[in-house]
Amino acid sequence: MQHSLDPLVLVGVAVILLLAKIGGEVFERIKQPAVLGELISGIIIGNLALVGFTQAESLKTNDVIAALAEIGVILLLFEVGLETKLGEMLEVGWSSLLVAIAGVVMPFFLGWGVAAYFIPNEARLAHVFIGATLCATSVGITARVLKEMGKLRTRESRIILGAAVIDDVLGLVVLAVVVGAIRATGTGIVLSKIDVVLIAAKAIIFLAGAIVAGRYIVPHVFRGAGLFEVRGVLLALAISFCFLLAWAATLVGLAPIVGAFAAGLVLEEVHFKPFTARGERDLSELLSPVSAVLVPIFFILMGMKVDLRALAQPKLLWFALLLTLAAIAGKQICSLAVAERGLNRLAIGVGMIPRGEVGLIFAGIGATLLMPNASGASEPVIGAATFGAVVIMVLVTTLVTPPALKLALARDSSKQDAPTSHRGTEAQRKKGRTTSVKAKKKLS
Amino acid sequence: MQHSLDPLVLVGVAVILLLAKIGGEVFERIKQPAVLGELISGIIIGNLALVGFTQAESLKTNDVIAALAEIGVILLLFEVGLETKLGEMLEVGWSSLLVAIAGVVMPFFLGWGVAAYFIPNEARLAHVFIGATLCATSVGITARVLKEMGKLRTRESRIILGAAVIDDVLGLVVLAVVVGAIRATGTGIVLSKIDVVLIAAKAIIFLAGAIVAGRYIVPHVFRGAGLFEVRGVLLALAISFCFLLAWAATLVGLAPIVGAFAAGLVLEEVHFKPFTARGERDLSELLSPVSAVLVPIFFILMGMKVDLRALAQPKLLWFALLLTLAAIAGKQICSLAVAERGLNRLAIGVGMIPRGEVGLIFAGIGATLLMPNASGASEPVIGAATFGAVVIMVLVTTLVTPPALKLALARDSSKQDAPTSHRGTEAQRKKGRTTSVKAKKKLS
Repeated sequence: MQHSLDPLVLVGVAVILLLAKIGGEVFERIKQPAVLGELISGIIIGNLALVGFTQAESLKTNDVIAALAEIGVILLLFEVGLETKLGEMLEVGWSSLLVAIAGVVMPFFLGWGVAAYFIPNEARLAHVFIGATLCATSVGITARVLKEMGKLRTRESRIILGAAVIDDVLGLVVLAVVVGAIRATGTGIVLSKIDVVLIAAKAIIFLAGAIVAGRYIVPHVFRGAGLFEVRGVLLALAISFCFLLAWAATLVGLAPIVGAFAAGLVLEEVHFKPFTARGERDLSELLSPVSAVLVPIFFILMGMKVDLRALAQPKLLWFALLLTLAAIAGKQICSLAVAERGLNRLAIGVGMIPRGEVGLIFAGIGATLLMPNASGASEPVIGAATFGAVVIMVLVTTLVTPPALKLALARDSSKQDAPTSHRGTEAQRKKGRTTSVKAKKKLS
Repeated sequence: MQHSLDPLVLVGVAVILLLAKIGGEVFERIKQPAVLGELISGIIIGNLALVGFTQAESLKTNDVIAALAEIGVILLLFEVGLETKLGEMLEVGWSSLLVAIAGVVMPFFLGWGVAAYFIPNEARLAHVFIGATLCATSVGITARVLKEMGKLRTRESRIILGAAVIDDVLGLVVLAVVVGAIRATGTGIVLSKIDVVLIAAKAIIFLAGAIVAGRYIVPHVFRGAGLFEVRGVLLALAISFCFLLAWAATLVGLAPIVGAFAAGLVLEEVHFKPFTARGERDLSELLSPVSAVLVPIFFILMGMKVDLRALAQPKLLWFALLLTLAAIAGKQICSLAVAERGLNRLAIGVGMIPRGEVGLIFAGIGATLLMPNASGASEPVIGAATFGAVVIMVLVTTLVTPPALKLALARDSSKQDAPTSHRGTEAQRKKGRTTSVKAKKKLS
């Protein structure tokens, strides 16, 4: 401890955690995901300076709080990876893959186009970056609605969930390419098409390599660690593994979250057997309190970065609106990509709408990447105004999905699925409140 | 995220966690507390530069890792506070209070004297500070040995544990006074005796005030929060409360750990009823994974700060040796302070020997406090050499306690306690390994 801890960190984290829970609670009461409440709490405290309260401003620039938020995101992607079973993904493989690719390509180009129209003076890579923030589906919100309606085991659900996971991977590859291109621009080099392919290949090889190497090494490491009798080995080992892969990702020019996700993909229940067999708690149980403290810091901080003054310009509101429409419309092509017959295509398209943590994480990375502008000075790829537009897109896509998905699924029930009548789903929706507390682990 | 996370933090935390567990495991295998293994792991990586490996040096000065370590200590003191039951302390009140006061006063002055003899050129406050690092007993190691020998319910044990807690409080008060005096010196003011009394009074009033106010406010807050249905309210609320009190402590000039300890004292099982009653996990269960990740960072970092080159001077080894003797001898006055008859006084004196986390925390604070030296330049109150001597004192007192305490208790068994023969305790010691895994929560 060269420098002792800034007391601002203590009061800041305390206030952030309390506001996150209050915002989350309010949104759950009105049957919305808690994560939206956290974002909106963040937007409110981030803009209190508008009414003369400037004390919260210093939280936005505190290095330690920013680091805690980023560690939170790394653990969140690790948890997402842990929840993703490779086997289950392969089962609905082709259908999910087609849906995912369609759902990444379309929004990417639509977002690029919208950005090129509204901020024509910014570099082309800035437009491309905004396209990238529209790629990844946030599976948590859809999964929650499907679970509430008792539809989690249907083929549609598995296609949506599988596609959302592939989306994450494709989104991370797109991010790697865009970030690589921006870094190269910073040094005055313009990337050729071959470089783009190389970066994408590097990202895919890293993910595949981590998974393959992990499959061979991880079981041995965890079996060896199982001989340790000191307290807390499982959690320490898992977090070390996640951080090491996140660090390794940065070495090959990828975002740390790519490594964290790969680490989660590699670890499986079976590796924890030596620990759980002797009565220790499961890894997800051990991780959840750690992420429950750190993850809300990220979402509150993302909300705080939204500058309402910047959004007050009508042109930017139009930008946000069209970006949101691009995000929603872009994913509807997914319903056309469903090759199988007899499925509720509309529900699949609607289920892919929400953009959540990954879109925000991309925007957050964009806000830290510097690029020379027209006049030669460095500025972030995602400026304050654009950042606000991306957050609005995340908020709106997340808000519209639950009612839209319920409608899409209800139509389906009345048409094909006689036993599960509309009354039945309605009753389940009412009961849903209790079930949902467990269901959205990934969101809060 | 103004600046994106330094990848060094990721690889640093990963390596620290792995080394902490390896060190802890090795020490548990040789029947020593895991925390010693963490310290020694830290000493090794902190001095790898001596053999030409300099990559670990940057970890010592990384702000984010230092902040994580300090948050770890704050949570550790919060947990210690949570484990301390005010009621149980009052039960053996007078005996513990006498033992505690004797055991704080004696080592304090002995340590002061030893420091004055070995580093006469440093300011008197530096000597006083070293005295302060000898005050607080580390109850974890003693509790573990007592538990292993099945003596945790004896009156001696309760006196030792009660005194150790009062030691913590008295130590924190002494720290507040010394830090206040050093801060005042920094601004050129010399503290009068009245100022010293005022600072001590402030510390005591803060603790008492926090406890009294907490008793009235906390039950209402937690009952209100019990109505929240969003995930993770209990943990978020408890950590916010801890951080807010830690921050409040800094406002009145106290160390954050004083506030964290007070926060732990105020919270009781009963406040968590609304949460545990509906099947949520208990607070200590939720906190333990968080602290299991952060606390080892602190101990490894403390070990890394030990500069073996500084300790290679014979004079400094003598300093460390005499400081250790002062720490051990100083606590033996505790056995004279036992007013009750028929108790194993020797065991009480020996049980008070170990100095652990609190001594290290004090030394860590001393290493960050700057004070003008004889030539007018600013330098830390606890320099590199002195810091090493304090760590050696902590290591040795912790190492000698388990065998010494077993001897002291065994002598007692053969004299008075015929049924619990020496053979019996021996058998229990062998069995102890399994019991101990649960027993030393506080240590690892």
